[in-house]
Amino acid sequence: MDKAQDSKEWSIRSLIPENHPRKESLIIREKIVEGLEEGYVAPQGLIAHGRGECFDYLMGEKTQQFAIDAIKASVATLLLAKHPVISVNGNMAALVPKEIVELGKEINAKIEVNLFYRTVEREKAIEKVLREAGADEVLGVGEDASATIPELFSERRRVSPRGILIADVVLLALEDGDRTEALVKMGKKVIAIDLNPLSRTARMASITIVDNVIRAFPLLIKYVRIMKSYSREALEEIVKKYDNKAVLTASLKFIAQRLSEISL
Amino acid sequence: MDKAQDSKEWSIRSLIPENHPRKESLIIREKIVEGLEEGYVAPQGLIAHGRGECFDYLMGEKTQQFAIDAIKASVATLLLAKHPVISVNGNMAALVPKEIVELGKEINAKIEVNLFYRTVEREKAIEKVLREAGADEVLGVGEDASATIPELFSERRRVSPRGILIADVVLLALEDGDRTEALVKMGKKVIAIDLNPLSRTARMASITIVDNVIRAFPLLIKYVRIMKSYSREALEEIVKKYDNKAVLTASLKFIAQRLSEISL
Repeated sequence: MDKAQDSKEWSIRSLIPENHPRKESLIIREKIVEGLEEGYVAPQGLIAHGRGECFDYLMGEKTQQFAIDAIKASVATLLLAKHPVISVNGNMAALVPKEIVELGKEINAKIEVNLFYRTVEREKAIEKVLREAGADEVLGVGEDASATIPELFSERRRVSPRGILIADVVLLALEDGDRTEALVKMGKKVIAIDLNPLSRTARMASITIVDNVIRAFPLLIKYVRIMKSYSREALEEIVKKYDNKAVLTASLKFIAQRLSEISL
Repeated sequence: MDKAQDSKEWSIRSLIPENHPRKESLIIREKIVEGLEEGYVAPQGLIAHGRGECFDYLMGEKTQQFAIDAIKASVATLLLAKHPVISVNGNMAALVPKEIVELGKEINAKIEVNLFYRTVEREKAIEKVLREAGADEVLGVGEDASATIPELFSERRRVSPRGILIADVVLLALEDGDRTEALVKMGKKVIAIDLNPLSRTARMASITIVDNVIRAFPLLIKYVRIMKSYSREALEEIVKKYDNKAVLTASLKFIAQRLSEISL
């Protein structure tokens, strides 16, 4: 009896044949499904992952130049920040827990759990994943998420008074448009990793990295290590020259170009 | 305490504000999440739904001409079929249960539960949804799924000897590429509803309806009612003239054109 027989487990690894042409994408997908089984990824997080897969597929599943440009501007912004915070949701915890912790240490950023579907169980489950990945401190869990973002409803507005509330720069991924907008209205610089260049988050963010978090996080770490030695002036120049609208337009043109070249 | 506090429920309706710009898409999404909670939608079905959402978004969330052409060819093929079968998975049961039953009755097709992640519990849960939607008979549940498709592994190859095994035409949606290929190799005509024109299922199928099942099923029913009165020759002519490769190419060009016209 294979795992397909057990309705409590949905592991793909035992079911997907070795020669399946989409095997790699299916294995990444499994990490998200495991996050669901462990209670920290929301079902809606799986749907969001699927949307991302589609855009990633359309972009050739590779980091393109417009993403590199955004990553460099992000790194400059993070290195210039006074209170940078990495906002973590279920999907990010499932896909890049070690990279989140590593980047946080490199840029001296706080790490904060920030959920659309906030429950103490999910907050704690994500904290556990991040601590196992090496985090010394995880904000936004339980009583710590006691401050509120104006203009947002329900549990979605809760943030940490030591984290996002006082942050000048927030790095987030796969975020809801309403929340991105609320953070921007609070005067924060928002760096968003989002595969959908048309999403409200992508359009609202100060800098949008149109790339898969799986590839973007290691690149952020790589460029932090390179750009740490840059002068403040050089970093400010990079931020000043960056044009997010041009980057989003380039990503759309890239997809359109690829689609028109595909032969069936 | 709102529903966000209860980790066993993920209902969106109580959380999404009335003025959320993506409210309609979120409510369709909820049907899939409810299918997950009731045990008949697989977590991977949510990811597949997300991919579909992305392509639907890129196509303007409307049925385009290339889909109408494919729907007409599908209806002609179904009306000419000796043993048409509608293959049903969790997502289809969550989104269009009544339409599946209605179409089945109109064209005298069998309805068969056909799952990538097959368990008796899921088969029975889908049978229940279909019977509540008015189905008199549901194949592919429990012992009935006793025949096997050659070249497939594990539980994925099981089909009903009274249904897909002897079918000449199979209508399916959101299907795995391997299985579509196996059905085509068995000499069956496969009609696929798939929002991703680049998927292996879309490319392998005899006819690909690049549209959302939510819109495609009512249109299939509408055209069956119109085309039922057509002569056999007229139906054969429609099938003969249909060019699936041209339809897929048209859908890709359409997306490319839309993307190049979007201004940010």
